[in-house]
Amino acid sequence: MRSAFYISDGTAITSEVFGHALLSLFPTEFEHHTISFVETIEKAYEAKEKIDKTSNRSGQPALVFHTFVNNDIREIIDRCDAVIYNFLEPFIAPLEKELAIVAKPTAHRTHSIHENSYDNRIEAVNYALANDDGSNVNDYEDADVILVGVSRSGKTPSALYLALQYGIKAANYPFTDDDMEELKIPTFLKPFHKKLFGLTIDAQRLIDIREGRMANSKYASARQCRMEVREVEKLYKKEKIPFINTTKFSVEEITAKILAETGLQRYKY
Amino acid sequence: MRSAFYISDGTAITSEVFGHALLSLFPTEFEHHTISFVETIEKAYEAKEKIDKTSNRSGQPALVFHTFVNNDIREIIDRCDAVIYNFLEPFIAPLEKELAIVAKPTAHRTHSIHENSYDNRIEAVNYALANDDGSNVNDYEDADVILVGVSRSGKTPSALYLALQYGIKAANYPFTDDDMEELKIPTFLKPFHKKLFGLTIDAQRLIDIREGRMANSKYASARQCRMEVREVEKLYKKEKIPFINTTKFSVEEITAKILAETGLQRYKY
Repeated sequence: MRSAFYISDGTAITSEVFGHALLSLFPTEFEHHTISFVETIEKAYEAKEKIDKTSNRSGQPALVFHTFVNNDIREIIDRCDAVIYNFLEPFIAPLEKELAIVAKPTAHRTHSIHENSYDNRIEAVNYALANDDGSNVNDYEDADVILVGVSRSGKTPSALYLALQYGIKAANYPFTDDDMEELKIPTFLKPFHKKLFGLTIDAQRLIDIREGRMANSKYASARQCRMEVREVEKLYKKEKIPFINTTKFSVEEITAKILAETGLQRYKY
Repeated sequence: MRSAFYISDGTAITSEVFGHALLSLFPTEFEHHTISFVETIEKAYEAKEKIDKTSNRSGQPALVFHTFVNNDIREIIDRCDAVIYNFLEPFIAPLEKELAIVAKPTAHRTHSIHENSYDNRIEAVNYALANDDGSNVNDYEDADVILVGVSRSGKTPSALYLALQYGIKAANYPFTDDDMEELKIPTFLKPFHKKLFGLTIDAQRLIDIREGRMANSKYASARQCRMEVREVEKLYKKEKIPFINTTKFSVEEITAKILAETGLQRYKY
């Protein structure tokens, strides 16, 4: 199996994300390796040794994806017994021309702390935790969005992802049997109707997830899960709450859809 | 200010991450826009209209960064009144040659659900929440890593990020006054010594954070914060617990350093 290395002088997240997107176009398997914080000549030689060994062991040159801006380090990596792809290079000259600005590479640009984004994100994580699963219904004034849905439809991971990645304050509230029987949203949510965003899920997937947590319970029964999903979707439609079905989506996709549909501004940049 | 658009038929996370890395090389400001889930001809024309309007309004062609693999959609975007950068294109032909495989583009590749990674991540999030802040000290057997440190040194966001991004089960335990006075780790942590990873933080930053939460308290006092930081670092050294200072690092950097130092395997791929 061909090895792919994602390396960088910082977190290597850019190399990983981009390299992964690129390799996913090829219908074959790869062995993935990440080497982060290659910030010194010494570490560059360590990385080179690891890459060379991998190439030699497998008899095929490893693929190396990097975003280095430091020339000394880049030159060492370029000498690896591997195929080297510099992700940024093809775009720098065209962008310099278009912007009429010379690129000024500095290390640790992308995933380091900048412009209050860190405080925003930590504050948003604290908010999501304090307002998880209906545990607090008194601070919805501060919410950017309130995720609603039946238990185990994906609210908590989505709220945490919105907080960690985008600094968005997402509360989440689980509809109860009572809410659904009466087919109405609880009184304390009404003033925040515009902030509500619904999640739903296929009944069979919900049964599987709940069985994993509480086997043979009423909570996990087919009858209960089907009823909850049917009623909650009726409620969304009646109350005109935008919603998505999370069954086939990753947390990245769920949250990207929430951002797209609500037009919420992210604080990452 | 020049506008930059990140667009894709999926979450647009790849375009965002890579475009952001690229633009951070240029010492100027940009107005960032993301258009995700451009999956149909109709949506492509909507995106084109938005981009064209932005270019015309600002009098400067917008920069458009994309990763489209669908030719029909790509052709519409290519006709925008903007400068178009196709991120994947420069690398596809060289990789096809190197791998001797023809690329088979399909939509929604990168940030969709695959290979159990979703279940791993949700399970890890549940684990992190159940084992946050020392709330449960009986399930450390299942932990991949146990983050330790004084209150507000970054344990919770780091544990959640490890779970959401990498499917790593991270518990976190806050050292108390008693633990530090005796300069030893609690009995129930001892069997898991190898899983411990310490966070520390500059005393002044800790004072600022705690003041924001509990102004004028003993908890936020300079004397208390300085003592806690000093003692916890002594404890890490005495017990040979690897640790990092989180003061100047983003949650991406903290977690990338934890992965690099512990050699923990991520489950994302």
